[in-house]
Amino acid sequence: MDRQVQKWGGVVLTAKGAATRQRIVEGMSALVREHGAAATTLDDVRARTTTSKSQIFHYFPGGKEELLLEVARYEADRVLLDQEPYLSALTSWQAWRDWRDQVVRRYREVGVHCPLGVLITELGRKTPAAQALTGQLLEQWQDRLRTGVVSMQEGGHIDPGLDADRIAAWLLAAVQGGVTLLLSTGRVDHLEAALDTSLAMLRGTGVTPRWRDPESDVASMR
Amino acid sequence: MDRQVQKWGGVVLTAKGAATRQRIVEGMSALVREHGAAATTLDDVRARTTTSKSQIFHYFPGGKEELLLEVARYEADRVLLDQEPYLSALTSWQAWRDWRDQVVRRYREVGVHCPLGVLITELGRKTPAAQALTGQLLEQWQDRLRTGVVSMQEGGHIDPGLDADRIAAWLLAAVQGGVTLLLSTGRVDHLEAALDTSLAMLRGTGVTPRWRDPESDVASMR
Repeated sequence: MDRQVQKWGGVVLTAKGAATRQRIVEGMSALVREHGAAATTLDDVRARTTTSKSQIFHYFPGGKEELLLEVARYEADRVLLDQEPYLSALTSWQAWRDWRDQVVRRYREVGVHCPLGVLITELGRKTPAAQALTGQLLEQWQDRLRTGVVSMQEGGHIDPGLDADRIAAWLLAAVQGGVTLLLSTGRVDHLEAALDTSLAMLRGTGVTPRWRDPESDVASMR
Repeated sequence: MDRQVQKWGGVVLTAKGAATRQRIVEGMSALVREHGAAATTLDDVRARTTTSKSQIFHYFPGGKEELLLEVARYEADRVLLDQEPYLSALTSWQAWRDWRDQVVRRYREVGVHCPLGVLITELGRKTPAAQALTGQLLEQWQDRLRTGVVSMQEGGHIDPGLDADRIAAWLLAAVQGGVTLLLSTGRVDHLEAALDTSLAMLRGTGVTPRWRDPESDVASMR
């Protein structure tokens, strides 16, 4: 970022300006992770990032609402990045299992202050910009799952007659449901049940009916 | 409720008092359904229910937070009631389909202002009382699904080797995920994909591998 001049929403920033702006976004992101979006004030952000209120409003004239949207954008990028390298290469059951472990690990770590929860619940219903952002994230996420399902169908591991996009929507809902229940209960077991059961069922659509195959995933479901 | 004297949290209310209190809860519930919890003020409640601010604080000394919890309690009861008579009698695939239709219909109607969304997201992470309420609702919900799964296992329609409680957790996550995505996208298709796919997969664990059985649910998945 050194010596570069960056543009943000039409405004040209110096390298130092861009770094300050980024520091504010990351500081707010950390606060939202710790305390939730509602409980985080611009005063907290100012103190955390050693900036002034006038600096914050210089970069984010729209104040908290605008800053929250920027944090959401930052977190949206991280949601998918945190699932790599698995999410983009779901070409074997081992890759699906690795992806499953990564997802569970991530949400166990972020716990009840899931930044995606902020995205979907705090912002999702409010502004068109936030809705577009959330919609785009979910679309990319579902698309990568769909690619993985197609790849497994081509390899003969998943019933090729299934609608891959609908299966991807179902898997995305399983993750979201598990996370929603984690936010509510503080426990990760619904997320685990959601992912494990879905993957075992999906695997069961392959050539051998899984409950007749002692080698299959079904052992972990019993 | 006529002529009865009711107790609420240790306070004895006359029939008229109880009716006023209930009118406030139902009015707030309607406002939350229309505008969301954050956007609903006590002034809105006062205007909607033709009560005074002092009446509201008489019944709910804790103000908006306390009233919101009471609305959550009211909505929690409705969440399960709205799934009856099917949720308590999931003893055939027809009953599961009727339940599925009822759930989709309900959430299509409440749309992006889902009162359960309010429960889980607005209150879930804040107060112990709200968390207890949400936890209890989810537990009852999962328990009824579990009873349904056991009944289907006993009838030979679902693989009896599966852990019924884990299957119920998986189904609950499917509903929650579908609803979370509905809140985010405004569309009901993830909820439909989540329920249809889960039920078809579950049905597939029965005696005949479902993708080999032209009579099975799988036709709707293709």
